[in-house]
Amino acid sequence: MRTIHRKGNYSLLFLILFVQINCFMPAEVFGYNTEDTRETNQIPLSWEVGFHKEKSQTPDRWYTATVPGAVQLDLLSTLENPDWHFADGYKQFIWMEDVFFTYRANFQKPVLSANQQLFFISKGIDYRFEIYLNGTLMLEQEGMFTHVEVNLTPLLKKDNELLVTIYPVPKSNQRHTDRSQADHSFKPAVSYGWDWHPRLVPSGIWDETCLEVRNADYIKEMDYSYELDQKLEAATIMVQGISSNQKGTARLEIYFNNNPVFEKESEVNNFSFSLSGNLEDIHPWWPYEMGNPDLYDFNFELISSDGIVVDHKSWKNGFRRVRLVENRGAIAPNELFPKSRNEPPFTLEINNVRIFAKGTNWVNPEVFPGILTRERYEELLELAKGMHFNLLRVWGGGIVNKESFFELCNEMGIMVWQEFPLACNNYPDDPSYLTVLKKEATSIVKRLHNNPCLVIWSGGNELFNSWSGMTDQSLALRWLNSICLEHSPGIPFIPTSPVMGVGHGHYIFYDKNKDEDVFQMMYRSHYTALTEFGMPSPSDPEIIHKIIPENEWFPPSPTEAWKAHHAYGAWVGETWLCTDILEKYFGKAQSLEQLIEWGQTLQSIGYKAIYESARQKWPYCSMALNWCFNEPWPTAANNSIIQYPALQKPCFEAIKQACRPVMASAVIPKFLWYKTEVLKINLVMINGSGETIPEGKMEVWVNGRPVDQWDYPEVQANRNVNGPAVEYQLLELKDQWINLELRIPGNNELNSDYKLLVR
Amino acid sequence: MRTIHRKGNYSLLFLILFVQINCFMPAEVFGYNTEDTRETNQIPLSWEVGFHKEKSQTPDRWYTATVPGAVQLDLLSTLENPDWHFADGYKQFIWMEDVFFTYRANFQKPVLSANQQLFFISKGIDYRFEIYLNGTLMLEQEGMFTHVEVNLTPLLKKDNELLVTIYPVPKSNQRHTDRSQADHSFKPAVSYGWDWHPRLVPSGIWDETCLEVRNADYIKEMDYSYELDQKLEAATIMVQGISSNQKGTARLEIYFNNNPVFEKESEVNNFSFSLSGNLEDIHPWWPYEMGNPDLYDFNFELISSDGIVVDHKSWKNGFRRVRLVENRGAIAPNELFPKSRNEPPFTLEINNVRIFAKGTNWVNPEVFPGILTRERYEELLELAKGMHFNLLRVWGGGIVNKESFFELCNEMGIMVWQEFPLACNNYPDDPSYLTVLKKEATSIVKRLHNNPCLVIWSGGNELFNSWSGMTDQSLALRWLNSICLEHSPGIPFIPTSPVMGVGHGHYIFYDKNKDEDVFQMMYRSHYTALTEFGMPSPSDPEIIHKIIPENEWFPPSPTEAWKAHHAYGAWVGETWLCTDILEKYFGKAQSLEQLIEWGQTLQSIGYKAIYESARQKWPYCSMALNWCFNEPWPTAANNSIIQYPALQKPCFEAIKQACRPVMASAVIPKFLWYKTEVLKINLVMINGSGETIPEGKMEVWVNGRPVDQWDYPEVQANRNVNGPAVEYQLLELKDQWINLELRIPGNNELNSDYKLLVR
Repeated sequence: MRTIHRKGNYSLLFLILFVQINCFMPAEVFGYNTEDTRETNQIPLSWEVGFHKEKSQTPDRWYTATVPGAVQLDLLSTLENPDWHFADGYKQFIWMEDVFFTYRANFQKPVLSANQQLFFISKGIDYRFEIYLNGTLMLEQEGMFTHVEVNLTPLLKKDNELLVTIYPVPKSNQRHTDRSQADHSFKPAVSYGWDWHPRLVPSGIWDETCLEVRNADYIKEMDYSYELDQKLEAATIMVQGISSNQKGTARLEIYFNNNPVFEKESEVNNFSFSLSGNLEDIHPWWPYEMGNPDLYDFNFELISSDGIVVDHKSWKNGFRRVRLVENRGAIAPNELFPKSRNEPPFTLEINNVRIFAKGTNWVNPEVFPGILTRERYEELLELAKGMHFNLLRVWGGGIVNKESFFELCNEMGIMVWQEFPLACNNYPDDPSYLTVLKKEATSIVKRLHNNPCLVIWSGGNELFNSWSGMTDQSLALRWLNSICLEHSPGIPFIPTSPVMGVGHGHYIFYDKNKDEDVFQMMYRSHYTALTEFGMPSPSDPEIIHKIIPENEWFPPSPTEAWKAHHAYGAWVGETWLCTDILEKYFGKAQSLEQLIEWGQTLQSIGYKAIYESARQKWPYCSMALNWCFNEPWPTAANNSIIQYPALQKPCFEAIKQACRPVMASAVIPKFLWYKTEVLKINLVMINGSGETIPEGKMEVWVNGRPVDQWDYPEVQANRNVNGPAVEYQLLELKDQWINLELRIPGNNELNSDYKLLVR
Repeated sequence: MRTIHRKGNYSLLFLILFVQINCFMPAEVFGYNTEDTRETNQIPLSWEVGFHKEKSQTPDRWYTATVPGAVQLDLLSTLENPDWHFADGYKQFIWMEDVFFTYRANFQKPVLSANQQLFFISKGIDYRFEIYLNGTLMLEQEGMFTHVEVNLTPLLKKDNELLVTIYPVPKSNQRHTDRSQADHSFKPAVSYGWDWHPRLVPSGIWDETCLEVRNADYIKEMDYSYELDQKLEAATIMVQGISSNQKGTARLEIYFNNNPVFEKESEVNNFSFSLSGNLEDIHPWWPYEMGNPDLYDFNFELISSDGIVVDHKSWKNGFRRVRLVENRGAIAPNELFPKSRNEPPFTLEINNVRIFAKGTNWVNPEVFPGILTRERYEELLELAKGMHFNLLRVWGGGIVNKESFFELCNEMGIMVWQEFPLACNNYPDDPSYLTVLKKEATSIVKRLHNNPCLVIWSGGNELFNSWSGMTDQSLALRWLNSICLEHSPGIPFIPTSPVMGVGHGHYIFYDKNKDEDVFQMMYRSHYTALTEFGMPSPSDPEIIHKIIPENEWFPPSPTEAWKAHHAYGAWVGETWLCTDILEKYFGKAQSLEQLIEWGQTLQSIGYKAIYESARQKWPYCSMALNWCFNEPWPTAANNSIIQYPALQKPCFEAIKQACRPVMASAVIPKFLWYKTEVLKINLVMINGSGETIPEGKMEVWVNGRPVDQWDYPEVQANRNVNGPAVEYQLLELKDQWINLELRIPGNNELNSDYKLLVR
């Protein structure tokens, strides 16, 4: 039992405030420079792991296991070539899908006082598993997101053996070795193979796991929620939960910038407690570039009848109001009878301010999520922020991330759209699937709903498209809506993306079936949001050199190595290398380096074009999220902006330019021009900031010569002003490239430039 | 306490099987020719009612009250002209909106044995009310759909006074005297005024109400549900609930055609019971014209430890499987990137068969729903069935009907789409509104979900349109979805109508803004379902004579009387009389009779055109429901097919023709032709039946002369076959009308004919 002074020693309290559920981890894992002086109540375990064909068997051999991690990584030494990133080396793991794995940890019974108990605790075991203590089955579970908590005390001996047996990877069918095998489980589908992810399905203990000594009196359940008034001035704070003791006191303190701002106590009554109160003068949590992502420190204590703090939880929380509201212009009455419905709302409104969401689709940063750390998340999130991204769509093919991901997004002011792990399949109305879905989704929603960064729940990816076949009537999606409503009514829920009015695609620079390039596509298209759009490029030479055998480097061809790394056969045409498209514009490449440079150039131009075009259409269009931000392993070619593990492609700088809050911008109807044509563009002043910008002058330059100018007026916050059309006779040009520049004299940071091809 | 032999005397059991909750009504109210030999445990009450300005007051005068009914009708004698249907007489009721009403019933304490209790029970009190016994407040409730059950026993005296005080009509604002005043309550919005309903808001006890003597042991709660297997062969039957006694036995028997087919017992355990079992060889419930609407008889008994049946419930139930599935052709891949989503599914599939739903929008058949009886429902439902209608959309502006409505639909095989009472308003995310909504909706869903006739739940009417402004994020609709999912997962839920791909309108024969008639609109339009389309006509002369002062009969003009009865000022143009449209086609009418004949002719032609055109587009279009079937009071002009109370308009016969399961049909591009033109039509053979029809010959006749023919092939069940185009030189015609006939020699019942104008 830990004893903490209840008053006075606030500094001590602060030391532990960052740890959401304090028992799990040493504080240094979170990377804070604080010293945790509490008595520890955790006991780490040493693990081994092995495989076996039948559940009843035991492994022939035990390998040292890293927890959290993945069984595949623990067995790396068994592979012919442990560098599984190279060529098609990932195929070496295939056999591991169909065997059982058992983890083993032996430990001695710790010293427990009379009223103490020993729990086995894990934040995630992937996917179906059983837990045994000294031969007795303690827990069976299907699902990697529901925390595990097993009281070991009654069966403890002096020397104990803890076993965790993991079932083979779930597969709903044996006909197809693809994502369809994931359509009856709550396991992320991506690892069953995707056009940018190898077929490699992780298994094992993938999040923090330890033994924990608990007092007889502890917090069995606790739920915190708040309601913020519409003016963002005051919040009603509510905490309720269950104690293991039928009496005692529950106590909540809240601090802002180290100052106590709230304190409330309530008696435990018949094992349950409930307290509420008002917090005034709220400092709202604002996303990055809109304000400060202010967080409050919460400390909740359970106090025994004799005044001892027997358990406590500490966390950070911010207060914000989020809604999805109708896009401006989307509710214009439909002119024709019969009339259908308005488009669904897709503009994010944060703290009563409508915003254009600039962002990206976040995918698993590792094939094996078990090795993800706060540091890995942090380096990637810094890169996202570096491009002015304010929204991450955490795509439904992947995992729900570990807690440090959300903590970082809260702190950095990056908004998160969280999908449940359903993607591109028809998840059935099957009772056993729905039972797992309800349990897992409830765990996820209850755990995450208080993160201020979380602004959208989504059922999953592309479920209402022909390749998936789910509908508004699918029970899985109705249950997810219902579970989010019950536990997280303050956060919008969408059944999937895209919904009506929202677009996914295109994923290439030029569509030969339509004879349409990305500028042309954007010029005609009219969407409330673009929540996926891709633009592939090859990876840097250094990466390709590491994953492709040297004799295959140039010219590239659809060998197993190039295909394994998504250069060929990933999707339509020659994706994702797109040599056909490069050849159309630039001719045949003479070296790998030239091919890569050309591909990366088109990627930069294409991404910049889409982000800017979407922003030009604000407020009707209110969101632009590229596909995709990162990648889980080194690829030969991919739509990613960030190469594995955290390396910028050149498009990083182009996107950063296209997402500046305030900027000059040009509406450009196409990429490829002929010298017999007149270049026609339109000017726009984009103000995505919260402040009015003064009137000024925008100059238009073509290949270094001034051709026109526009005296633009004052532009209000979060508004665009459309300027005049500008025309230019291309006959005069000598170059292969049109270098179009928009210059704002005296405000060079608002300048923009564009590269277009001319023949 | 009633004692029933538990075995052997099945005939006695059958006598009571029809009564869903046996205690409420004498069996003869349901119209069955059975004799109920049970001891009665109900005690009717004699009621008086009066009004007062403040809640604390008592009425100055008491009027005899009819229960169920409405306070307005009890106070008819206070009106200057009690014939409130005449002219604008409905305005006499306006003052009653803003006063309190109190019902009073005095009764003597009945003889109760030691373990008996006396309950006050009501199936509906409209809208907000308080119940007092001998001056003590027993219950407060907001909401007219949650049954009331009050144990009066503890406060009973020899002479008792029961008071029910009804609050003034709920109004969320005083600015507008219209439907917007209903936007914070769960009260049907229609009575606040609609383009076919007077502003007249009912109040009072509107459904069955009595005292009831209960044993100490009774069924406190009971829920029955089933799961039917996909092959429709076997059902899992589940009953669970709560007894007032912690011990005893629960017993369920099921009979089909008087033969026992299921029997199961289960012990009551700590006040709750739960039993389940399989029923084999299911005879599914089929809608009208698809098969038999077979029903099973259920008898549930609660049996005390000494073998006495202390309480029981009996009901009828049918087994069917219902889904909303994707319309054929609606999931074709969208050709253009960016891609959005598939249209939501809108084809009803009943017992694994996709159907075209032919039907109508059902509105309250009375301004005061309290006076609705089984007989009123029955005469209207027979008329619906007479037009081959298989689906009624019970529109969300009105009430959820009384139980006899659903019993009749079950028995007659008519499917019901039930909306919750939300319509054309923006119902808010307000916690107090949501609390009432959740309570009321849960009551409705738990009570109705087992009716086999019920095939769609809908959040309400036109909530995603610009005039309402709700969205997919509105908490009210998310809660309704969630409540339906929890208690009625087997029935599809849609948030509102129209959803994406579904159309509402048009409501006139000719749109002068578009210069488009109903044939032209249908020729171009492409919807998965048409769930509202109107075609107005004047009512019969006899009705108009009763509601319009004689000196205003002809020519009609926008007087208060004509406006009150929706002939003018109801909607756009001169609706619903549409003299402008009649004049366009026929010139100025010379008499009221001629005007009515013309209007009713256009209505017949227009409705026939829409039903047939929608059916021609099967399977992409899968539903056609006109606006509206009936009306709550006599109108001068309206879109209704059935005039108040239950009189056919001439369009009845035209619609009946257009909805025959099998028929010849013509695709007609427009209504008004010129003699310089060539009439061009296309032929279709429609087979909406479950059986293949053999090949045959279709002859095309124009004004009595054969002009073409088509040898049509065999047509499979639920399929159409498109035939050739037919052309005809109109120059030859001498008449004002084109009389187009399609004749099937030897199968005259499949013939069709059309009237088109020619100049």
